[in-house]
Amino acid sequence: MSFSLSEREDTIVALATPQGVGAIAVIRLSGKEAITLCNKVFKGKDLEKQASHTIHFGTIRDGEKIIDEVLVSLFVAPKSFTKENVVEISTHGSSYIVNQVIKLLVRHGARPAKPGEFTQRAFLNGKYDLAQAEAVADLIHSDSEASHLAAMNQMRGGFSGEIQRLREQLVHFASMIELELDFSEEDVEFASRDDLKNLVEKLLRVIEELIGSFDLGNVIKNGVPTVIAGKPNAGKSTLLNALLNEEKAIVSSIAGTTRDFIEDEINIGGMVFRFIDTAGLRETTDLIESMGVARTREKMKTASLILYLFDLTDTSLEEVTRDIQKLEALGVPYIKVANKVDKGKPGLINDLTKKYPDIILISAGLKQNLEALKSKILELVNLDRFRTGNTVVTNIRHYDSLVKTRQSLLDVIAGLDRQISNDFLAMDIRRSLHFLGEITGEITTDDLLDNIFSKFCIGK
Amino acid sequence: MSFSLSEREDTIVALATPQGVGAIAVIRLSGKEAITLCNKVFKGKDLEKQASHTIHFGTIRDGEKIIDEVLVSLFVAPKSFTKENVVEISTHGSSYIVNQVIKLLVRHGARPAKPGEFTQRAFLNGKYDLAQAEAVADLIHSDSEASHLAAMNQMRGGFSGEIQRLREQLVHFASMIELELDFSEEDVEFASRDDLKNLVEKLLRVIEELIGSFDLGNVIKNGVPTVIAGKPNAGKSTLLNALLNEEKAIVSSIAGTTRDFIEDEINIGGMVFRFIDTAGLRETTDLIESMGVARTREKMKTASLILYLFDLTDTSLEEVTRDIQKLEALGVPYIKVANKVDKGKPGLINDLTKKYPDIILISAGLKQNLEALKSKILELVNLDRFRTGNTVVTNIRHYDSLVKTRQSLLDVIAGLDRQISNDFLAMDIRRSLHFLGEITGEITTDDLLDNIFSKFCIGK
Repeated sequence: MSFSLSEREDTIVALATPQGVGAIAVIRLSGKEAITLCNKVFKGKDLEKQASHTIHFGTIRDGEKIIDEVLVSLFVAPKSFTKENVVEISTHGSSYIVNQVIKLLVRHGARPAKPGEFTQRAFLNGKYDLAQAEAVADLIHSDSEASHLAAMNQMRGGFSGEIQRLREQLVHFASMIELELDFSEEDVEFASRDDLKNLVEKLLRVIEELIGSFDLGNVIKNGVPTVIAGKPNAGKSTLLNALLNEEKAIVSSIAGTTRDFIEDEINIGGMVFRFIDTAGLRETTDLIESMGVARTREKMKTASLILYLFDLTDTSLEEVTRDIQKLEALGVPYIKVANKVDKGKPGLINDLTKKYPDIILISAGLKQNLEALKSKILELVNLDRFRTGNTVVTNIRHYDSLVKTRQSLLDVIAGLDRQISNDFLAMDIRRSLHFLGEITGEITTDDLLDNIFSKFCIGK
Repeated sequence: MSFSLSEREDTIVALATPQGVGAIAVIRLSGKEAITLCNKVFKGKDLEKQASHTIHFGTIRDGEKIIDEVLVSLFVAPKSFTKENVVEISTHGSSYIVNQVIKLLVRHGARPAKPGEFTQRAFLNGKYDLAQAEAVADLIHSDSEASHLAAMNQMRGGFSGEIQRLREQLVHFASMIELELDFSEEDVEFASRDDLKNLVEKLLRVIEELIGSFDLGNVIKNGVPTVIAGKPNAGKSTLLNALLNEEKAIVSSIAGTTRDFIEDEINIGGMVFRFIDTAGLRETTDLIESMGVARTREKMKTASLILYLFDLTDTSLEEVTRDIQKLEALGVPYIKVANKVDKGKPGLINDLTKKYPDIILISAGLKQNLEALKSKILELVNLDRFRTGNTVVTNIRHYDSLVKTRQSLLDVIAGLDRQISNDFLAMDIRRSLHFLGEITGEITTDDLLDNIFSKFCIGK
């Protein structure tokens, strides 16, 4: 999929709302001819004579046949999502009608839009930089407070702004160095090497921080990888279901979302927790017991959080102590959870809470004390880290570019230390600029763009 | 669910587009306070100072927190779907965002709308009569040219107009008769009894016609109940799949519809054919063979169309003749289909086509001659019947009212013949008027309305 220049001139059309039955559906047209083209099938006011940001009632007709009574919204270039002429046709929410209207518009010269083509046009026409355009897709798929906040911040340019500032400072130095090249016979130094090194080191610290934020960003976008572990019959699946059920109730009280098919994601306090391979966990059993197996060890290590369940009806202080030693050795944050508190031996409960004051006593079956467990989970994950409005890298493409930028900047410093010639220094700086530019789209290739936008849904 | 007067004063809110991930989602508010309420959470222009049918860009905010960048469309009463103030908020298509925005609006005083409540308000505020409001739901669920045409015709008042004309004529006579009651001492006759009888008979003919159209209307709305029958291994499921696959290909070329889960509906030439219990049919076998079983006989009779498959590799002229006799006795329209034409005995094919010139020779496996079969199907169903724009009754509630009207009108005629007193005559006429009025909603009860609108989806 590559967008030729002539393709960019086309008027494109797609359903902008989800498939399915609803009260209304919105069909979107964008392109120079969008309004003219809609006018051909619309009976009502002459759309070409109407102002931007106005709405008009009428019918969409195929010859004499009325396909639907609709509302048409006009957005005259450049005051639109794509900066082109945009028409949104609000029809009754029947897929039969939607198909008929799109077919009709295609017959009159529109082209069905490719995935992400509306947002791609918004980028190409300078409405968004690339990182912002990518955030549009993230925003649509955001399903928790955390992912929503990160995407919204990125779409509104927070992330791009930070990259932009870094870039401008580097550009300044690059031009100085390149200026020196022009005067290379005269051995002048416009850019102080000490200042340059200071700047590059400062940049490196910011970039390290951004790279470091990707762990968090990834977790925000994809959920905190979490494992529930414990001996067989400790109540692992009961606990998972107790947490799941509660979440499902919350979700469905606002009318169903599309997430029903995702079994094992739980939203706790605005953060998604993704239970790793929990289907398997339900059958396998004590991950700690089988820690010798490399695969299991890997799984435990990829988790950001382990909920370790002790069965109060079937354990001893010694056993618990031994398990905790193993958990500590893993180096993954974990929570000690003592289950079946309603049936546990009082003596054991006393001993445990005395020795481990941070142990959480619950009954998964009776759903007792789950709130305390959730608070503990959030405490460990530290939701506040991304509530401060700090920039968080959530996109693996950005992460890759940042890692490459870091390497180029390290090359610059090494070059300064070895006092390499200005030509090579300038080249290293330019390479850093290139990688930073990839993030915001100042540097792009058709392949890169295709790759990014083809992951969007059609209509966006 | 009953709508008290105070509930009708509420500002209601709901998602108007389907659930799921899309580029955009539209949240709809309706009520006196719709614009004021939206204004409280919208940062941008002052919405209360803007004209109707205008669109405004801004952000929806919960305090300082930005929930989304949105477009807000304003419809100032009475120029809206409900004739109340209506606001449509176009957000990014994330269910997280949609839920947050709806929650926020509810916190500021909106009430989540009940199913069909927007359309119910349109009816209560005189935008539509009842039959038109019901057609809105039919339109949304229309999935073929035929059902779409019938719903569109009904929504635009075609059906109501016809009922209205009948009613007006009756009203005229009713008032004449009632006027006579006022002068009952004087034995005058304002309304000629012959004219009245003529009118009622004329009305009866129209109503009979409407009642008669319900068979067709039902088929338009729910599909033509069709059975594929034949001996085991005659190729019944192969034929069904061949027809299904082709249809599915057509549907998905316009980007998926929601109908994937409906296995056995096939759209042929703008008409839906619903295959009755075909899952069962695939296992059971020869319906004709087991015709002795009452249940099977019933199933055959409820079909509007039978495709009877002869296996050319495994039958004889005698067997075919015997089967056709049984089919004729059923009294259901059927099509003789000879399958496996590529492997059939040439002699048998010759004999059959000579004796039954209307037999269709196909190969379901090779998808040969399916077009001829489809033409034959459409010929039998006579799609043109509803292409003429004739009014078709598709709603069982309307059908019931028409049947009751017919009975009342027959009572009027019987009364005229028996020369009953004007009091009784007027009563019978009034009863006819009552039933006709039920259709368009001039006569309603809360229960009736609740029953009708609760079947709508939320947001409509």
